[in-house]
Amino acid sequence: MTRIDDLPIRDELRGKSPYGAPQLDVPVRLNTNENPYPLPEPLVRRIAERVTEAARQLNRYPDRDAVELRTELARYLTHTAGHEVTKDHVWAANGSNEVIQQLLQTFAGPGRTALGFEPSYSMHGLISRGTGTGWSSGPRNDDFTIDVEAATAVIAERRPDVVFICSPNNPTGTAVEAATVLALYEAAQAARADGAGALVVVDEAYGEFSHRPSLLPLLAGRPNLVVTRTMSKAFGAAGLRLGYLAADPAVVDAVQLVRLPYHLSSVTQATALAALEHTETLLKYVEQLKTERDRLVTELRAAGCQVVDSDANFVQFGLFEDSHATWQAILDHGVLVRDNGVPGWLRVTAGTPAENDAFLDAVRAVLKESKR
Amino acid sequence: MTRIDDLPIRDELRGKSPYGAPQLDVPVRLNTNENPYPLPEPLVRRIAERVTEAARQLNRYPDRDAVELRTELARYLTHTAGHEVTKDHVWAANGSNEVIQQLLQTFAGPGRTALGFEPSYSMHGLISRGTGTGWSSGPRNDDFTIDVEAATAVIAERRPDVVFICSPNNPTGTAVEAATVLALYEAAQAARADGAGALVVVDEAYGEFSHRPSLLPLLAGRPNLVVTRTMSKAFGAAGLRLGYLAADPAVVDAVQLVRLPYHLSSVTQATALAALEHTETLLKYVEQLKTERDRLVTELRAAGCQVVDSDANFVQFGLFEDSHATWQAILDHGVLVRDNGVPGWLRVTAGTPAENDAFLDAVRAVLKESKR
Repeated sequence: MTRIDDLPIRDELRGKSPYGAPQLDVPVRLNTNENPYPLPEPLVRRIAERVTEAARQLNRYPDRDAVELRTELARYLTHTAGHEVTKDHVWAANGSNEVIQQLLQTFAGPGRTALGFEPSYSMHGLISRGTGTGWSSGPRNDDFTIDVEAATAVIAERRPDVVFICSPNNPTGTAVEAATVLALYEAAQAARADGAGALVVVDEAYGEFSHRPSLLPLLAGRPNLVVTRTMSKAFGAAGLRLGYLAADPAVVDAVQLVRLPYHLSSVTQATALAALEHTETLLKYVEQLKTERDRLVTELRAAGCQVVDSDANFVQFGLFEDSHATWQAILDHGVLVRDNGVPGWLRVTAGTPAENDAFLDAVRAVLKESKR
Repeated sequence: MTRIDDLPIRDELRGKSPYGAPQLDVPVRLNTNENPYPLPEPLVRRIAERVTEAARQLNRYPDRDAVELRTELARYLTHTAGHEVTKDHVWAANGSNEVIQQLLQTFAGPGRTALGFEPSYSMHGLISRGTGTGWSSGPRNDDFTIDVEAATAVIAERRPDVVFICSPNNPTGTAVEAATVLALYEAAQAARADGAGALVVVDEAYGEFSHRPSLLPLLAGRPNLVVTRTMSKAFGAAGLRLGYLAADPAVVDAVQLVRLPYHLSSVTQATALAALEHTETLLKYVEQLKTERDRLVTELRAAGCQVVDSDANFVQFGLFEDSHATWQAILDHGVLVRDNGVPGWLRVTAGTPAENDAFLDAVRAVLKESKR
C-alpha cells in the first residue's frame, strides 16, 4: 500500500494531519461555533424555489462575478454595519477561508509574510502556509487583548505584508477596539519602506454577535484595509460555505486576478440570495444567542470557572490544569466542546437553552468530580 | 480613486487581467464548452428535494469528507470508465480547477515546477502561477498530437514536479493514446533523481465525449498518476462547479493536507448526488452531442475549413489569416465562438442541432464574404 510519504509531496507537508475538529456522534455538539437554530421552514422553501430556478440553467456557467449576490451582501452590510458599501466594495467566495486564501495569493505568497496575534483563528496561519506565505505570530496580553505597543513594535520589526486582526477573536471571544485596529494599520503602513504599505485584514466572522459596532466604517480612506465576514454563523448557514469581504473596490479588482474562474456555483449563489431575503428573522436568532452567550459567561463564573469576556457566539473558559482531560470528562457527560490547544482553556459554542443547560450541568459535574 | 497598482499586490500580478471568456449577450453562445441541454425536469425536481433536505441542516457544517458523494462518483467511474475505484480513490472539489489547485499546492508550489504541452487548457499554467509553481511549456506536433520523443526529452531535461496531459485536449480536441501517457509517466518518474518521482495529471474533463476509452485503467500500480474529471460538461452542470479526481488513496489523503476544511458545501453535495442519480439520461445527451460534434467536423471540412480531429464536445477549426477578425465576423452573424489565442484557429462548442446550423451558416457566410 502506498503511503503519503511515498509520494512526491512538498517537504513541509510531511508528517502533517488535515485540519479539522473531530466529527463525533454526541448528543450535544458545541465544538464548531455552529448556529444551533435550523433555518426557518419558509426560508427552506424559498431556497428550494431559488435553487430550482438555478437548476433549470445549471448547464450554463454561473455568473462569474456574482453581481446580484454581491449587491445584496452590500445592502446587508450597509443596513447593519453603519457604513455604506456597494457591490464594488464586496467580494464573495466559498467560505471566508477561500476569501482569505485569495487575499494571501494576491498580497502575500512566496517570499512574503503574514502576521497574526495568537491564539487566534488557526486557519490564518494554515492558509498562509498553504499559499507559501511565511507565518509569524505576535503576542497577546494574559487576558487575550492585544497590547498596542507590543503589537506595533512587532509589526515595525517584522514588516509583514499582511496583518490579521480577528475581532471578535476566535477562540477567545475578544473584540478589538477601533483605536487598536487604527494603530496597527498605521504601523503596518509605516513599516513598509517601499511605500506600498501592508494589507490589514480584520476577520469579523463573528461580528454580528459583538456588543460593539462593526469595524467596517474604518474602511473609509484606507485602501489597504479589508473586513471579512461569513454567512456560516449569524445566518445559520455553515453548510452553505459563503464568505465575503468588504474593502476598497481596487482590492475587489485585485483578488479577481487570482480567483479561480466561476468559483462560486449557481446553487451557492441562489441559496445565499434566499437567506439574505430572510435577514430579519435570522438576526432575531442572533439576539437569542447573544443572551445565551451572556448566560454562559455568568453561569460558568458562578460555577467557579475563569471566563474570557466574549463578543462572539462562543465562550473560552478555564483554567484547567489538564484542559484535554477536562475536555474528555465533559465529553463523557455527552457534551462535545473544543480543545483549541490553548493551555488551560476550552471553548464552548452557545447552543440552544437546553444544550447550554446540558453543558453547564456537565461542567458542574466535572468540577465536582475533580474536587473529590 | 485607488487603482490595483496602488495596492501592495505581488509584482507578478501587476498589469494582469482576470481569466475568463467574454460573457456577451448573443443569440448563439458556443464559446465555453457548455452542454446546450438544460437538465431534464425530473432531475430539477430531484435537486430541489435533495437541497431542501440539505437546507434543513444548513446551520451545520457539511460532511467535510463528502463521503456519500465520493462513493457515488466512484460508482459512476467504475461503471463507465472500465476500472474499479472506491471512495478512497476519489476526491471532489469546487470545479476541477480547485482539484488542480489542491494538487499543485500538495505536489508543486514555490521552488517546484509544472509542465504542460501547449496549446492546452490555459488554467493549468494559470493555477500553477497562482500557487507559486514555475510553469514550463512543452511542444506539440503541427497536428496538435504529442510527439513522445520530444516530450520525454523535455521531461528529462526540465525534470518537472507535475506533468499535465489534457485528453481530450482543450482547445484542440485531441485525445492522447494510452501508450503516450505511459511513456510520459515513465519519463517523469525517471527524471527525478530523488526517486520520489513526479506527479502526472491526466485531465479528462471531456473524457465522456471521446471515441476512445478512459485512461482511468492506467491508475493501477501507478501511485503518481491522477485522472481529473468534471460534472460541468457530460453532466450538463457547469453551474454546479463539481470537479473530481481518481488516484491512489494516498493521493486522496495527501490533498486533504491542503484542502480548505469544509470546502464543498452541503448544497453542492446534494445537487451533485441528485445529478448522479440521473446519469443514464444525461449520458444520452452526451451521445447526441458526439453525433453533432462529428457533424460539425464533417460540415466544416466540406465548407473548406481545416479541422482538428475531435474527441471532445468542441471542434478547433481554421486556418484563418487573422483568426480574431474571423471570430468577430462570426460574432457579427450572432454566433459567439472562442478565440483561444492559437494563431489561425478558433474553437466552437457543439450545441443543439439548431445552434450548430446557425454556426455553420455563419461560417459559410463569413468565408464567402472573405472571398469577395
